[in-house]
Amino acid sequence: MQAKIQSMAKVSIAKGMRDFNASEVFKRQYITSAIREVFETYGYAPLETPSMENLSTLTGKYGDEGDKLIFRVLKSGDFLKSVPQDASRDAGKWSALVSDKALRYDLTVPFARYVSTNLNEVKLPFKRYQIQPVWRADRPQKGRFREFMQCDADVVGSDSLWQEVELMLIYADVFKALQLPVRIRISNRNILAGMAEFAGVAGSFMAFCTILDKVDKIGIDKVKEQWVELGVLPERADALANMIQLSGEAGLEKLASLNAQATEDVAFVVKHFNENNANPDATLLFDPSLARGLDYYTGCVFEVEALDVSVGSIGGGGRYGDLTGIFGVKNVPGVGISFGLDRIYIALEEKKLFPNDVAPTPYVLGVNFGDATSARTFQHITALRRAGIMAEFYPEKAKMKKQFDYANARNIRFVLVIGDSEAEKGVASIKDMTTGTQEEVKLEEVVGYLLSVA
Amino acid sequence: MQAKIQSMAKVSIAKGMRDFNASEVFKRQYITSAIREVFETYGYAPLETPSMENLSTLTGKYGDEGDKLIFRVLKSGDFLKSVPQDASRDAGKWSALVSDKALRYDLTVPFARYVSTNLNEVKLPFKRYQIQPVWRADRPQKGRFREFMQCDADVVGSDSLWQEVELMLIYADVFKALQLPVRIRISNRNILAGMAEFAGVAGSFMAFCTILDKVDKIGIDKVKEQWVELGVLPERADALANMIQLSGEAGLEKLASLNAQATEDVAFVVKHFNENNANPDATLLFDPSLARGLDYYTGCVFEVEALDVSVGSIGGGGRYGDLTGIFGVKNVPGVGISFGLDRIYIALEEKKLFPNDVAPTPYVLGVNFGDATSARTFQHITALRRAGIMAEFYPEKAKMKKQFDYANARNIRFVLVIGDSEAEKGVASIKDMTTGTQEEVKLEEVVGYLLSVA
Repeated sequence: MQAKIQSMAKVSIAKGMRDFNASEVFKRQYITSAIREVFETYGYAPLETPSMENLSTLTGKYGDEGDKLIFRVLKSGDFLKSVPQDASRDAGKWSALVSDKALRYDLTVPFARYVSTNLNEVKLPFKRYQIQPVWRADRPQKGRFREFMQCDADVVGSDSLWQEVELMLIYADVFKALQLPVRIRISNRNILAGMAEFAGVAGSFMAFCTILDKVDKIGIDKVKEQWVELGVLPERADALANMIQLSGEAGLEKLASLNAQATEDVAFVVKHFNENNANPDATLLFDPSLARGLDYYTGCVFEVEALDVSVGSIGGGGRYGDLTGIFGVKNVPGVGISFGLDRIYIALEEKKLFPNDVAPTPYVLGVNFGDATSARTFQHITALRRAGIMAEFYPEKAKMKKQFDYANARNIRFVLVIGDSEAEKGVASIKDMTTGTQEEVKLEEVVGYLLSVA
Repeated sequence: MQAKIQSMAKVSIAKGMRDFNASEVFKRQYITSAIREVFETYGYAPLETPSMENLSTLTGKYGDEGDKLIFRVLKSGDFLKSVPQDASRDAGKWSALVSDKALRYDLTVPFARYVSTNLNEVKLPFKRYQIQPVWRADRPQKGRFREFMQCDADVVGSDSLWQEVELMLIYADVFKALQLPVRIRISNRNILAGMAEFAGVAGSFMAFCTILDKVDKIGIDKVKEQWVELGVLPERADALANMIQLSGEAGLEKLASLNAQATEDVAFVVKHFNENNANPDATLLFDPSLARGLDYYTGCVFEVEALDVSVGSIGGGGRYGDLTGIFGVKNVPGVGISFGLDRIYIALEEKKLFPNDVAPTPYVLGVNFGDATSARTFQHITALRRAGIMAEFYPEKAKMKKQFDYANARNIRFVLVIGDSEAEKGVASIKDMTTGTQEEVKLEEVVGYLLSVA
């Protein structure tokens, strides 16, 4: 049949979108299962929010740039009737008239919406995890997609630093399960704030952080230049450059004068992480140059890198003083972390860390000789399936070569042949496609035999 | 902290959308895991397609009514620039100008798009399953949502009826795993076509089927009335009414004259299903009144009902002669089935068929007495987690009552207390919240003890 299929497809996948074939689905599940299992062991419970939120729930939460990247969904029916006849042709104004729903842009705002609307159901402290896709109207480029999975764990309703300790241990446990060596960097927003104050630019704190955040890309000299442009005195810029190159325990001591509480907090997290960590390939290190961009962080911030692979950050998070204030519900502080599925995938692929059997393929193919014998073979395939063995029956009578080619193409290990001559002898002929060897097995022993070599 | 949270939320979930809390997520996973496992055992491989497709991929595939229910995504940036200044205000025309992407409406068209654009990668026969949400701009009502999960398995590239047999066995195996008794009804489009011909309305075949499809709702007399309005002679309508009340083997024999091949096909599927079925609570029955609406079915059609619960159809499917012709790729026939997650959920809930432990909650809560002893307790919680036990540490120093209340609210079975007096004695006090009993256990035996009672 395949020979006849020659026409060119008059269709294509949408820009920035991806299909995931079986192998990719299984590999992604391998990662998300590891994350899910650790989240649950630490007492985080799953939550799923809908793909669409009211447009007003999302707009104004991600800054001007973020707002532009929100995918808006057109109203159903006559969406033009909400637009006044004399409305000027301004896409910004129109979009709020012709659209009232939008696709999830991250998992944090929907979580805040969920907590705000379910205060009676939610028992604080509330630990939830969420593994769902988000959508952003970014320009697609290598490694950047318009639909991608986020894996978040957050706990709200408590200021306790034990939460930070737990979240860092979750990172260590997940990357132990995935066998991916990592370094977690930790700092505290208030240490940065102390630096900005020392630099005399406390009023431009966000800009100060944004510049620092680029240090890996543009280097420390450019950072100093831009700080000076922002208003930092050159000698203070030099002192700051020295500060951000400090690290670890010694660094915490030296920077205590910037904000004693903040450095103590980081020290607490590092100390108890080390007391409890069981992953020798995960380290937690204080790094004052860490300046994660999100402006709602108010305490500790974290970022995870894989060692020896340059995929950028594979996770990050931080503490926020106020999750739900945007929705009129005050006094809900929290802390959360996120895993970057796509980058973890690339890192595992590059380091060949996916297990060999990550993408199971059927184990047995039953050969089809036509109706006379096929019912018998099919029953053996059924018996294998009932025994938990992934098995297939070639659906049509076809040449042996074609059926064996199919087994090879699908990476099926054993081919089960029960033709007339085998049936007469009461046996099946079982060929191992990996070794080429063939065995005759009594019909009643087929399941046992294949279970024994599985 | 909870006492202070009193403000009313100024936000709500979007219309027709749902949040799923932990218990709901776990119950849904229980169903989808059962489906997934059986699909894989039968050699079906997972596929995931993106949430958004090009608008032109989806429009024109679901009929006029379907087209209206497609959620269209607004173009990013200045979406008005594609609209001519003098364009008349027609929402239908505008939507194709201001939108070029749309949300997945079902899993079949994206599957057809995937096969069409990946002919080189796909080995025929190609067996894929897909468990993903779809979106429809339906008016929300009880049990009908704008986002819901579809669970489909399809095999394309073969005409073999063994595929139908397999798919019926998949239904039987899944509902065996879920312990839900079901009846599967099967018919064949060509038997219906034979009836329409007998009725003299072959030219109005779809209308003929649409009327028949309503028999459960409006009763056979109304069906006859509407058939007569369509042009069926009254005496033929009576004969047809008798025909559609036939069933099983006897029915197949009596209706063979309508289309011998079609009745033989159904008989083949029923026969081999019965030979291989291991679920005594799943029956497959020929029912000529089955007239599934989708007009692309060309062979066998199926529908599944749960017994003793009125939730309507919980699954269905059929054979189609041509999956990818709509995209210019010819000669790809196939057959597929679908599971209705939401209705299966309702049926399991009504019949109390969810296992008691379907939604795991943490097993142990470590009590927090403040920094002096908390580090020690935390280390025991860590040890429990490493042993695979879901465990939590109460993050803050709080009154015992509050911490015990939290354990109760979260359905946590054991509370682990290591205060100063316990620590001096080298023991932990472990309270079983279900029985109220309390035991002193040596610190080094805490993990072993809790594993032994787990």
